[in-house]
Amino acid sequence: MNEAELRELIDGLRAGRVTPDDAVAVLRRLPFAEVGDALVDHHRHLRQGMPEAIFGRGKSPEQCVRIVSELLAHGTGPVLLTRADDDQRKATLAVHPDAVQRAGCLLWRAPATSAEPRVLVVSAGTSDAPVVDECVLTLAAYGFAADRLVDVGVAGIHRLLAHLDRITSADAIVVVAGMEGALASVVGGLTAAPVVAVPTSVGYGSALDGVTALLAMHASCASGITVVGIDNGFGAACAIARIMR
Amino acid sequence: MNEAELRELIDGLRAGRVTPDDAVAVLRRLPFAEVGDALVDHHRHLRQGMPEAIFGRGKSPEQCVRIVSELLAHGTGPVLLTRADDDQRKATLAVHPDAVQRAGCLLWRAPATSAEPRVLVVSAGTSDAPVVDECVLTLAAYGFAADRLVDVGVAGIHRLLAHLDRITSADAIVVVAGMEGALASVVGGLTAAPVVAVPTSVGYGSALDGVTALLAMHASCASGITVVGIDNGFGAACAIARIMR
Amino acid sequence: MNEAELRELIDGLRAGRVTPDDAVAVLRRLPFAEVGDALVDHHRHLRQGMPEAIFGRGKSPEQCVRIVSELLAHGTGPVLLTRADDDQRKATLAVHPDAVQRAGCLLWRAPATSAEPRVLVVSAGTSDAPVVDECVLTLAAYGFAADRLVDVGVAGIHRLLAHLDRITSADAIVVVAGMEGALASVVGGLTAAPVVAVPTSVGYGSALDGVTALLAMHASCASGITVVGIDNGFGAACAIARIMR
Amino acid sequence: MNEAELRELIDGLRAGRVTPDDAVAVLRRLPFAEVGDALVDHHRHLRQGMPEAIFGRGKSPEQCVRIVSELLAHGTGPVLLTRADDDQRKATLAVHPDAVQRAGCLLWRAPATSAEPRVLVVSAGTSDAPVVDECVLTLAAYGFAADRLVDVGVAGIHRLLAHLDRITSADAIVVVAGMEGALASVVGGLTAAPVVAVPTSVGYGSALDGVTALLAMHASCASGITVVGIDNGFGAACAIARIMR
Amino acid sequence: MNEAELRELIDGLRAGRVTPDDAVAVLRRLPFAEVGDALVDHHRHLRQGMPEAIFGRGKSPEQCVRIVSELLAHGTGPVLLTRADDDQRKATLAVHPDAVQRAGCLLWRAPATSAEPRVLVVSAGTSDAPVVDECVLTLAAYGFAADRLVDVGVAGIHRLLAHLDRITSADAIVVVAGMEGALASVVGGLTAAPVVAVPTSVGYGSALDGVTALLAMHASCASGITVVGIDNGFGAACAIARIMR
Amino acid sequence: MNEAELRELIDGLRAGRVTPDDAVAVLRRLPFAEVGDALVDHHRHLRQGMPEAIFGRGKSPEQCVRIVSELLAHGTGPVLLTRADDDQRKATLAVHPDAVQRAGCLLWRAPATSAEPRVLVVSAGTSDAPVVDECVLTLAAYGFAADRLVDVGVAGIHRLLAHLDRITSADAIVVVAGMEGALASVVGGLTAAPVVAVPTSVGYGSALDGVTALLAMHASCASGITVVGIDNGFGAACAIARIMR
Amino acid sequence: MNEAELRELIDGLRAGRVTPDDAVAVLRRLPFAEVGDALVDHHRHLRQGMPEAIFGRGKSPEQCVRIVSELLAHGTGPVLLTRADDDQRKATLAVHPDAVQRAGCLLWRAPATSAEPRVLVVSAGTSDAPVVDECVLTLAAYGFAADRLVDVGVAGIHRLLAHLDRITSADAIVVVAGMEGALASVVGGLTAAPVVAVPTSVGYGSALDGVTALLAMHASCASGITVVGIDNGFGAACAIARIMR
Amino acid sequence: MNEAELRELIDGLRAGRVTPDDAVAVLRRLPFAEVGDALVDHHRHLRQGMPEAIFGRGKSPEQCVRIVSELLAHGTGPVLLTRADDDQRKATLAVHPDAVQRAGCLLWRAPATSAEPRVLVVSAGTSDAPVVDECVLTLAAYGFAADRLVDVGVAGIHRLLAHLDRITSADAIVVVAGMEGALASVVGGLTAAPVVAVPTSVGYGSALDGVTALLAMHASCASGITVVGIDNGFGAACAIARIMR
Repeated sequence: MNEAELRELIDGLRAGRVTPDDAVAVLRRLPFAEVGDALVDHHRHLRQGMPEAIFGRGKSPEQCVRIVSELLAHGTGPVLLTRADDDQRKATLAVHPDAVQRAGCLLWRAPATSAEPRVLVVSAGTSDAPVVDECVLTLAAYGFAADRLVDVGVAGIHRLLAHLDRITSADAIVVVAGMEGALASVVGGLTAAPVVAVPTSVGYGSALDGVTALLAMHASCASGITVVGIDNGFGAACAIARIMR
Repeated sequence: MNEAELRELIDGLRAGRVTPDDAVAVLRRLPFAEVGDALVDHHRHLRQGMPEAIFGRGKSPEQCVRIVSELLAHGTGPVLLTRADDDQRKATLAVHPDAVQRAGCLLWRAPATSAEPRVLVVSAGTSDAPVVDECVLTLAAYGFAADRLVDVGVAGIHRLLAHLDRITSADAIVVVAGMEGALASVVGGLTAAPVVAVPTSVGYGSALDGVTALLAMHASCASGITVVGIDNGFGAACAIARIMR
Repeated sequence: MNEAELRELIDGLRAGRVTPDDAVAVLRRLPFAEVGDALVDHHRHLRQGMPEAIFGRGKSPEQCVRIVSELLAHGTGPVLLTRADDDQRKATLAVHPDAVQRAGCLLWRAPATSAEPRVLVVSAGTSDAPVVDECVLTLAAYGFAADRLVDVGVAGIHRLLAHLDRITSADAIVVVAGMEGALASVVGGLTAAPVVAVPTSVGYGSALDGVTALLAMHASCASGITVVGIDNGFGAACAIARIMR
Repeated sequence: MNEAELRELIDGLRAGRVTPDDAVAVLRRLPFAEVGDALVDHHRHLRQGMPEAIFGRGKSPEQCVRIVSELLAHGTGPVLLTRADDDQRKATLAVHPDAVQRAGCLLWRAPATSAEPRVLVVSAGTSDAPVVDECVLTLAAYGFAADRLVDVGVAGIHRLLAHLDRITSADAIVVVAGMEGALASVVGGLTAAPVVAVPTSVGYGSALDGVTALLAMHASCASGITVVGIDNGFGAACAIARIMR
Repeated sequence: MNEAELRELIDGLRAGRVTPDDAVAVLRRLPFAEVGDALVDHHRHLRQGMPEAIFGRGKSPEQCVRIVSELLAHGTGPVLLTRADDDQRKATLAVHPDAVQRAGCLLWRAPATSAEPRVLVVSAGTSDAPVVDECVLTLAAYGFAADRLVDVGVAGIHRLLAHLDRITSADAIVVVAGMEGALASVVGGLTAAPVVAVPTSVGYGSALDGVTALLAMHASCASGITVVGIDNGFGAACAIARIMR
Repeated sequence: MNEAELRELIDGLRAGRVTPDDAVAVLRRLPFAEVGDALVDHHRHLRQGMPEAIFGRGKSPEQCVRIVSELLAHGTGPVLLTRADDDQRKATLAVHPDAVQRAGCLLWRAPATSAEPRVLVVSAGTSDAPVVDECVLTLAAYGFAADRLVDVGVAGIHRLLAHLDRITSADAIVVVAGMEGALASVVGGLTAAPVVAVPTSVGYGSALDGVTALLAMHASCASGITVVGIDNGFGAACAIARIMR
Repeated sequence: MNEAELRELIDGLRAGRVTPDDAVAVLRRLPFAEVGDALVDHHRHLRQGMPEAIFGRGKSPEQCVRIVSELLAHGTGPVLLTRADDDQRKATLAVHPDAVQRAGCLLWRAPATSAEPRVLVVSAGTSDAPVVDECVLTLAAYGFAADRLVDVGVAGIHRLLAHLDRITSADAIVVVAGMEGALASVVGGLTAAPVVAVPTSVGYGSALDGVTALLAMHASCASGITVVGIDNGFGAACAIARIMR
Repeated sequence: MNEAELRELIDGLRAGRVTPDDAVAVLRRLPFAEVGDALVDHHRHLRQGMPEAIFGRGKSPEQCVRIVSELLAHGTGPVLLTRADDDQRKATLAVHPDAVQRAGCLLWRAPATSAEPRVLVVSAGTSDAPVVDECVLTLAAYGFAADRLVDVGVAGIHRLLAHLDRITSADAIVVVAGMEGALASVVGGLTAAPVVAVPTSVGYGSALDGVTALLAMHASCASGITVVGIDNGFGAACAIARIMR
C-alpha cells in the first residue's frame, strides 16, 4: 500500500465513503499484510503463468499427489515436480496424466515458451544429463525455450569452440559440469553474458560428490561467474528467471 | 572448413565466382580464427569505457606501478587495482595520484555513473565493509552508482524490513554477509530480482573463514540465488555487470 | 552424606545403636556410593515422572522389546523409544500397545502435559517434520505441551512475521532447520527467551547432511543462541527440560 | 499498535482530533514500525540495564573509541567491549578510564551483580582463561556474579569430583573446554541444570583450532547439553542470560 | 592475421602474386582453424590402433550396448568399457562376445601387446586388485603387456625387496595402494623411472575412502612421483601411455 | 647369516668343502634373503602360536574359505577371520566348523588364554559391542583373556568410578568409545598403565562416523594415550600384544 | 581404603583407639579422597622421580617462571618445560639455570637415565628434529636414555635397512614422521615391539600441517601401530613410559 | 655387486689373491650394502651431473651454508637450494657466490642445458611465477632448458590457443595453475604428451590454498594427466626428469 492509496483510504474515511469498520479491517491487515501485500502484489505480478514447484525427494507418493492436486486446483499457472522417483512419478501421472517429463521432473500446464531471450544450457558430459533436464524443464516452466549444448568438456576444447556462435550469441548461459568443473571458466571467458554455473556430483573419487566442482567454480579465473548448489539445475533456472525477467 | 572447401573458395576467388569481399567475409569466420577476432571485436565493443582490473595481492609495489602505468598509457578506459596494501597504494598513487579510493581498491579514470539500473549492495555487518567497498568501487568502474544498505543483519530483522522499499525496487542486489550468511536467504525471499551473494570471511571460529557462509548460501532455501567466492566483492560486481548490460 | 550424618553414624556405632557390620555396609558404599547417592537422590527427585529413553537405531526389535519391557516393569515414569524403524515399532507395540506415536518415536505412560511454560517448536520446512516430531514427543514425555509452528522458512519472511506473537510470547523456543539454518538467527533476533537450535540433515548437496546448518547456527549473528547435534530433536527437548525445570 | 489504538486513531481522524497528515504519518510507519514497535517495546523492557556490546576485532582503535563513546552518551546501561587488543584497550581507556577489565574485555558502567541465580563457569585448563574471562565479564554485564571453577580437566577426574557440590548446586553451568572437550559430557552427567558448552581453540594440532571440541560436544553422550561457537564466551553468557531471565 | 593481411592475401591471390597452393598453405595455418585440423591430424596419428574408452558407471546397459556397437562399427581400434556392472557386462557381451575381461572392464579388439617397454604395476594388497585390473587392461588396450607385482605392502618390506630387480629394471611403474599409500614412497625411492601412483579407496575408516592415500602420495618424501585420482587405474594407464609413446 | 656362518662358508670354500657355484648360489641370495632371514627368524620366534588374520570385507565367501583353509593347512597356530558378513561366516563354518565366534569374527584353533597380564577392554555404550568383540576375540587369538567393562560412558561418571579397582589394577587398557570419545581421557587419567583408544563410528550426525572421536582422542588432555583407527578393534588388540609380549 | 582397613578403623573406633574426631576426619575424606587417595597412592608410587610437565605455549614468561619455581620448590622430581619460546626459555633459565635443553624444551633435575629398556626414536627427516628432541628429553625426564635414528625416510629404504639391528633389537620404538608418514608402516612391519607413531606438521601443502601423516598412520597396513597427536613428541614419550614401566 | 664381481671375489679367495678376512669384510657389507650398491650403482649412473637438492624452509641460514658447502665440496654435480628466504639466500651467496637465481631458488654448478627434449612449462597467471621459477630452475639442474608459456589462463582461451604449436610440439608439459586449475584439463586435451600438473596456492578464499586446484586436477576430464603436490614445482621437474631420461 503506497502513500497515495493510504491517503485515499483516509480521505474516503473522512468523507464517509469508507466505514470505520472497513478501515480497521484494511489497516488491521497492514502490519505484515503490508509486507505480505507488497509481496503478494509483487508476486501476483510475477506469478501470472509462473510455476509452483514441489521438491519430490523425501515425500511419499501420496503427499506428492495431494500437493500437485491442490496446486492444480487452486491456481492456473504451471506446476512443477522435481526429483521425483518412479513411484512418485507414476502416482502423480495416474491422477494428472498431462505432464511433460524430463528425467525425474514433471511439468503440468507447461506454458508457451519463447526462444527469446536466448538461454543456453551447456554441459560437459552425458552423465550431467539429469541436471540439464531439471534445468531445462524448469526454464520451460518459466516460459523459456532453452538451447542445449551437451558433451563439450574442456578436454576436447575444439568441440566447444565449434559452437562458439551459440555461446557468444546467448543472452544467458547455464554451465552444468561435474568432475573439475573447468567448463565454467572457459565459457565464462568466451562471453560477456551472465553465466550461472551448476556443479554436479558426477565424477570419480576425487570429485568428492560435486564439492570439487563447486570449489573450482568459485575459484574460477573467469570473473563474474556465479554458482548455485551441487546438482541444483532447478536453482540455476530460477536464477536465470530472476535475471531475464 | 576442410581443405577441399578452402581450396574451392580460393579457386572461386581466382575465377571471379567469389568476390574478394565475400571471401574475406567467409574467411573471417573461419572456425577458430573467428574465435580470437570475434572475441576481440566483442571485447572491443564491450571494452569502450570498460575497466581493466589488477589484483594487487602477491605483487610487489613496483609491479603494481608498472602494470597500472601500462594500462593507463595504452587504453582509455577505467583502471582498477584491488586488494592493494599500503605500500602498493602509496607507490601507485605517487605516480598516478588521480584515483578514487575505497578500502584497498583504487580506481583511475572513473567513468560517469548512473543510478539506473538500480543496483543495491546489502551487507549484514560493519565488518563486511571492505568487501562492500570492493564491490561498490568495481561497480563504479562499470558505470553503476550502487545504493548501499549496511548493517542489516537478520538478527534484527526489523532493521532490514524498514528498508523493504529499497529492496523490492532494486533491479539487482548484491548481498554481502559473513558469519552464517542468512541475509542472502531473507533478501532472496523479498525480491524477484537477481541476487548475487558474497560470503565473507567475517566471523568467529565456527565461521571457518567464510566457508560456513558459502555453504549456507548454496544451501539457501530461497531459490534462484547465486553465489560468488569468499570475500569476492569484485566478482559480484562483475556478475552484476554481466546481468545488467 | 554430610558431616552431621557421618558423625551420627559414628556416634551410633560407638553407642551400639549401629552394628559394625551395618557401619561397614554403609561406609563401604561411601566412596562412590556417595557420588552415586548424591546423584541418585538428585535423580530420584528429578525422576518422578521423568522419562526413560531408548535410542532405537542399531538395536534389534527383540532388544527394543526387552528394554522397553524392563523399563515399564521396574519404573512408573514415561518410557520413550526414539528412532525406531517399522520392525522395532511393530515389535514393541505388539507387546505394549498403549503408546503415543509420532514419526519414529513411541511414548508409553505419557504424563499429563501443561501448556505452561510455553515452549514453541519452530521449523523451516515440511521435511524437518520427523525431527520436530521427535522433539515434541520428547517434550511431552517431560510433561511439556509444545506449540508447533511449521513451514516458516526465512525465504518467506512474512510467513514467520505473521506469527510474531507466538514467537515473542514463548518462554523457550526450539528452532529446527536444515539447509542454511538461517531461521535460528532470525528467531533469535525476535525474542529474548532461550533458543535451542537443531540443525537437520535436510537439503541438497551443499547442505552437507546438516553440517552446513550446524556451522551456520554456530556462526549466527544472533547472540545467545545454543545448538545441539544434527537431527537431534531429542537432545533439544532435553535441553529445554534442563532450562524449564 | 493494537486494535483499540488503531480504532482510536480512526475515530480521532473522523472527529477531526487527528489531521489526515498526522494519520498518514502514523499509519505510514505501521507496516514495519509495527514490527519495530513490538520489538522496541520488547527491547525497552529487556534493555533496562542490559549491556550494549562491541566486538573489537577488526575495528580500528579510533572506531572503538567512537562507538564506546556513543553508547555511553546515548544510553545508561552497561557497555562491553570484547576481543580488544592492546591498542584498542589503551585508546578506549584513555577516554573512558572507568572500566572493569578481564583479558581483552572491558566493561563500563558495570551493574550491581547478584550471586543468585548461581551460575558456574567451569573450565578444563588454565589456557582456557581468556574465554572464561570473556564469559564471566559478560555475565557481570548482565548482572550475574558467576562462580569460577577452573583447571578441572577430566584427565584428573578427582579434581572435578572434589567440587561436586558446586556443580550440583549450580542453577546453570557454562563449561569451557578445548582439546577434546570431554569436560562437557562429564559435567552434563553430574547435573540436571542447563549446561552451555563452549569449545575453545586451545590444544595441539589434532584439536584443529577448536573444531574437535565443537564436534565432540555435539556428539556428547550426555543429553541436553547445548553448544555455542568456538571461543565464544560472550555467546555463552548471552545464552545464560536468556535462560536465567 | 588481421583483416588487412587477409585482404592482402586475397588480392595477391587474384593478382597472381600468390599461388593457390601458397594461399591454401597460409590459410590452412590460420590461428585457430589450425586447431581442429591440427588436433584431428594429431589424433589421427595417435588413434591408429588407439583405444576408445567408455566409462560404464551411470549408464544403462542399453546405452553401453549402443555406444560399444557404434565404436566397433565406425572404427577399427580397440574399444574399452570400464567400471561395468554385471548387467552392463552381460548386455554388451550378449551382442559383442569377443571381449577380454578383467574385473569390471571389457576390451574388444585387444591389440597385440609388447613386453617392451617394461611397465610394472605394483600393488599393496589383494583388495586393490580391481584397480590393478582396470589399469592392466587399459594398458593392454594401448598395446602394453604390463608386469604385475601384487601384495607387496610396506608393512612386509622384505616381500617388496625380494623383487627389487623387477622394480629397478622397469621402464615405468604404476603403484596402486590404498590405506596409507606408503608403497609409492618406497618404490619411488628404489627407481629413477617414472612412477605414477594410484590411491585406492581400500581401507578402514581412517583411510577416508582413498583421500588419506591421495594426500599421503602427494606429500611423499620421494621426489618426482606423480599421482592420479582415487581408484583411477584407467587414468594411470593413460598417463603411462602418454609417457611411453 | 651371522659372521660365524659367513666365515664358515668362506672356510668351506677355501677348503673345497663348498664349490664356487654353491657359494655364489648362497651368497647371491644374501642381499635380501638376509633381510628375509632375519625377519623370518624373528617371525618364527614370534609366530609360535601367533594368529594369522584375514580381513573379510571385500572378499568373496569362496576367497574366505580358500584362505582360511590354506592357513589352517599350512600352519599350526590360530586363524582369525574378522569383519565377516553372514555369507562369509556360513561358508567358512560349513568347511571348518570348529570356530569361536563373536560378532563378525571367527577364530579357529583358539589358544589357551591367560588372565595375566590383566588386559581390560572398557567401552562407553552397548552400541560399541561389535568393536569390543573384535578386540576381545583378537586378544584371545594372542592368548589374552581380556576383562570386559561395558556401558560406562562418562555422562554417568559414577558407573565408571564404581569399577575403579578394575581400572587401576589392569596392566593395559583398551578404551572403545564413539560419540565424543571422552571415556579415553577419563580412563587415561585414572591409570598409569598403557591405554590404547579405539574411536568407533557410533553416534549421531555430529559424530561424523568416528572422526569426531578420533580427533578428540588425539586431542585428549590425558597424556600418553595412544590411538588406533576408527572401529579398529583388531588393531587395538595387536597393539596390546606388542606391548604385553 | 579397602574393606579390611575400613573394618580396622571401625574396630579402633569402638575400642577407643581412634577418637570420633579422627574417624570423622578420616571418613570425611573418603568420598572422593578415596578416589584421590587411590590415585595419590598410585601416583606416589609412580611419581618417585617422575616428571612434572608444563606446556609453555600460551603462557607468559612470568607465568612459566612462577610455575617452574613452584614445582621445583614443592617437589623433588624432574621438572619439564615444553614448547618454550626464546623469552620463556631465557626467563626461566635466568632464575633456574641448571636445565638440560633440547629445542624448545628444558628439563630441571634430570634423573639418571638407563639405556635399558632400549627405546628407539626413529625419524624421517631432519626437519622432524624439534619433535624428536621433545620426545627424547621427555623420555630423559622419565629416566629413559633413548637411542636416536634420524633421517631414514622411506624414499631411501636402504638407509633404514642399514640400521635393521637397532630396529629389531629395540624394546619400544617411537616413529616421528611428517609428509606422508610412511615410515611408521615400514618400521611397524620390521618389529614386533610396541610402535608409537608421531605425525609431524613437516611438509609441503598437501601434508596439510600433519593431518595427512596422522590419517596415513591410522590407515597403516602394519597392524598394532598406535598414534599420538600431531607434533606431540611429549605424548609419545608419555606413552612409552606407560608401556615400559 | 653383480654376479661377475661376486664370482671374481670367490675366485680370488680360492686363489689366495684375497684373504679370508678381506672377503669377510667385503661380504659382511653385502646384506644391505648390496641393496645400497645396487642403488648406488644405479645412482652413480644416474647421478653423473645430477643435482643434489636442499629444501631451504625450516633450516637456519647457517645450516643452509653448511649443507651447500658440503655438497659442493664432496660432489661434482649441480647443487640446488629451493624455498630459500632472503637470509638464507644472502648467507649462501656470501660464501658461494656463483649461483644462478630464480625466485627463492639457487643453483650452483648449473650444467649445460639442452632444448631437446622440448619441455614446456605453462602457467595460468603471473602469480604462479615463483612455482614456475622453481620448476624451471630444477629442470635446468637436470640439464633441461625449459620453454615458458605464462599467463594463459582458460578464461581467455584464445591466448592459450594462440600458442597451440608450442603445446602440440612439446615432448612433455608441466602445467602450473592455481584457482580452479582448469588449465591442466584444457592442455591435457590438446596434447598426447605427458602432462604433469602442479596446483598452486594462488587464489581467493574458495581456492583453499591450493586444495581446490589439486582436487580439480585429479577430477580432470582429460585422461592421463598426473598431479604433484601443491606449489611443488621442484617435484614436477623431478617427475619430468624421471620421464625424459
